[in-house]
Amino acid sequence: MLAKHPDPTVDHVLKTWAPRMIVQGIDYNDFMTTSTRIRTWDDWCREWCATAAGHEEFARENEAKGNRQSATEAYFLASMAYHFACNNFPHDLEQYIPAAKKRVECYARAAPYLDPPAERHEVPFENFRMAAYLRVPLGIKRPPVVVIISGLESTKEEARTMEDGLLRRALATFTFDGPGQGESWFQGGMIVEFERATSAVIDYLEKISQVDANRLGVFGPSLGGYLAPRSAACDDRIKACTFAGGMYDRSRVRDRLDDPFEFARISHIWKVYDKQKLVELHSRCTLEGLAPKIRCPLLVVHGTKDFVPVEQAKRTHDEASGPKEWVLLEGGNHVCNNMPFRYRPLIGDFLAKHLGARPV
Amino acid sequence: MLAKHPDPTVDHVLKTWAPRMIVQGIDYNDFMTTSTRIRTWDDWCREWCATAAGHEEFARENEAKGNRQSATEAYFLASMAYHFACNNFPHDLEQYIPAAKKRVECYARAAPYLDPPAERHEVPFENFRMAAYLRVPLGIKRPPVVVIISGLESTKEEARTMEDGLLRRALATFTFDGPGQGESWFQGGMIVEFERATSAVIDYLEKISQVDANRLGVFGPSLGGYLAPRSAACDDRIKACTFAGGMYDRSRVRDRLDDPFEFARISHIWKVYDKQKLVELHSRCTLEGLAPKIRCPLLVVHGTKDFVPVEQAKRTHDEASGPKEWVLLEGGNHVCNNMPFRYRPLIGDFLAKHLGARPV
Repeated sequence: MLAKHPDPTVDHVLKTWAPRMIVQGIDYNDFMTTSTRIRTWDDWCREWCATAAGHEEFARENEAKGNRQSATEAYFLASMAYHFACNNFPHDLEQYIPAAKKRVECYARAAPYLDPPAERHEVPFENFRMAAYLRVPLGIKRPPVVVIISGLESTKEEARTMEDGLLRRALATFTFDGPGQGESWFQGGMIVEFERATSAVIDYLEKISQVDANRLGVFGPSLGGYLAPRSAACDDRIKACTFAGGMYDRSRVRDRLDDPFEFARISHIWKVYDKQKLVELHSRCTLEGLAPKIRCPLLVVHGTKDFVPVEQAKRTHDEASGPKEWVLLEGGNHVCNNMPFRYRPLIGDFLAKHLGARPV
Repeated sequence: MLAKHPDPTVDHVLKTWAPRMIVQGIDYNDFMTTSTRIRTWDDWCREWCATAAGHEEFARENEAKGNRQSATEAYFLASMAYHFACNNFPHDLEQYIPAAKKRVECYARAAPYLDPPAERHEVPFENFRMAAYLRVPLGIKRPPVVVIISGLESTKEEARTMEDGLLRRALATFTFDGPGQGESWFQGGMIVEFERATSAVIDYLEKISQVDANRLGVFGPSLGGYLAPRSAACDDRIKACTFAGGMYDRSRVRDRLDDPFEFARISHIWKVYDKQKLVELHSRCTLEGLAPKIRCPLLVVHGTKDFVPVEQAKRTHDEASGPKEWVLLEGGNHVCNNMPFRYRPLIGDFLAKHLGARPV
């Protein structure tokens, strides 16, 4: 097991997020060496940026030499290290913003050479142009597509390994930065009616020829596990809905706003820095009245050790009106990221089945 | 960092091999949960087998449901867990042998569905039929091929992620169980003149049409980093030689034979259980007189923290007669498995360049 870190915040973040960081693409050794260099929480962003910069330098050297594969792998590692440098660090935007921009920049350099490539798109939605990546499995004509809806502090760059699993199941993927997320944060904060952003994505996908938007599903981890079923309830063009570590309503956030660490994370995504206003916004974030409108096939996966109470996810499942599956993974943490070898196959196979994926 | 394990042998094995286990395919979470269940060294093999059995069961369930991708991923995870269950455990063959057989069986079930597939071959060599896996990058006609020569206690199944990196660089891979290794151990122990086994592999590859054996290289990690340059010195059909964590001579093994833990590992691979005989055999395992015969391009990678002294690898490099590169990675452990993001790109790019790999 991991040794106890002397700084309680660092210890909390490492213990909570290690499985997520690693499954999303942080190298195990980077995790160990960087967390050893971090002495106090204040070091977090700087040290992860130092790790990222090492990969970025190696990437640039290899790019110059024409070693495309090495450059791509290193840009991806750099992007992930910059990403987790910002994560949990929105209280210090002077460090956060440059790291967030580096995440975007490094991923963009890797994207065209991933296998299959990730193609950048921008989805118009009100005042936003939501940046997104489309990946299409090779050799399959107009495959079904899965829209990945990120969680709090997740961004489109973080979904690469999840996408890989869907792509291997002959599903295209479209991962976007919604309001308050990733690049879109610079344009505006989170909104209560996030389903309108998802619908804008579907409008967009209906117009491009690479995928079959008539066979479209969604996956949402964590906060995405609230936004995805909300979207499925409101837009019947969603033909299958899956989520892990999701919640039925966000009103409980109220109880966390007195913790400065949590306040910083939540106020950041909304770009709302007034506690009462945040309480009011979250009181409107609920699937009450919406969950019964989920009529497409639904798969809900939750872990017994998720800090989101099991009954939250179960309630969404129970109120949904269509065919549905409930999987409770014994020992699973938040999103079941400590059991990626269980939840990811379950979700991938469910989507492949219900969207009619046809491997080559 | 990892917490100190109360059992000193478990602690030693975890600290020494964690980076290798994870880069070769052990899931981070399996590593953490299994090492927590292991109370004393005696538990090692049994608990890793329990982890493996969980994946194997999931694989079988998914196979029955037709979820091919999920079954394949789970069989691979099972194979790796069975593999590391045996590793360091040859003193207890009653546990070791069933686990080793399960490793082979589970990998064989994943192999045809890996991307690209791994095709089983058997190379005749004296009394051996050396089991091997050939993987060929898709869409490339008769690519160059890299023969991977395993280290002590490594087997052909362990090379999958290393192969993946070579395949992405348009190189085919051929990984075999030499004398004393993996399946071949059941037929006979290690031999001093291992180069004859490598030459048998090359004879075999010259006869199959999928690869271009005129553009053949070798890679060897650890003990493979002695066997690979030895092979390159003796067979000029090897057109490029790479190794990491390798050694010039094996005579120093003498100093470790009084440690029962090390004695078990070394006597096992040779199938020689007499200390004096082992000392005599290892005294003949040297590149003295051979290293100067390495005339093909050579890349030697070594870590400053490798328990194999730097001068061992450096001497092989220094005595070689052809074009050569020496890379010493600051902080690299044995084989530099704690810096896979450095040594693997270096080796992959070197082989791709010198064997004339041509990506699609």
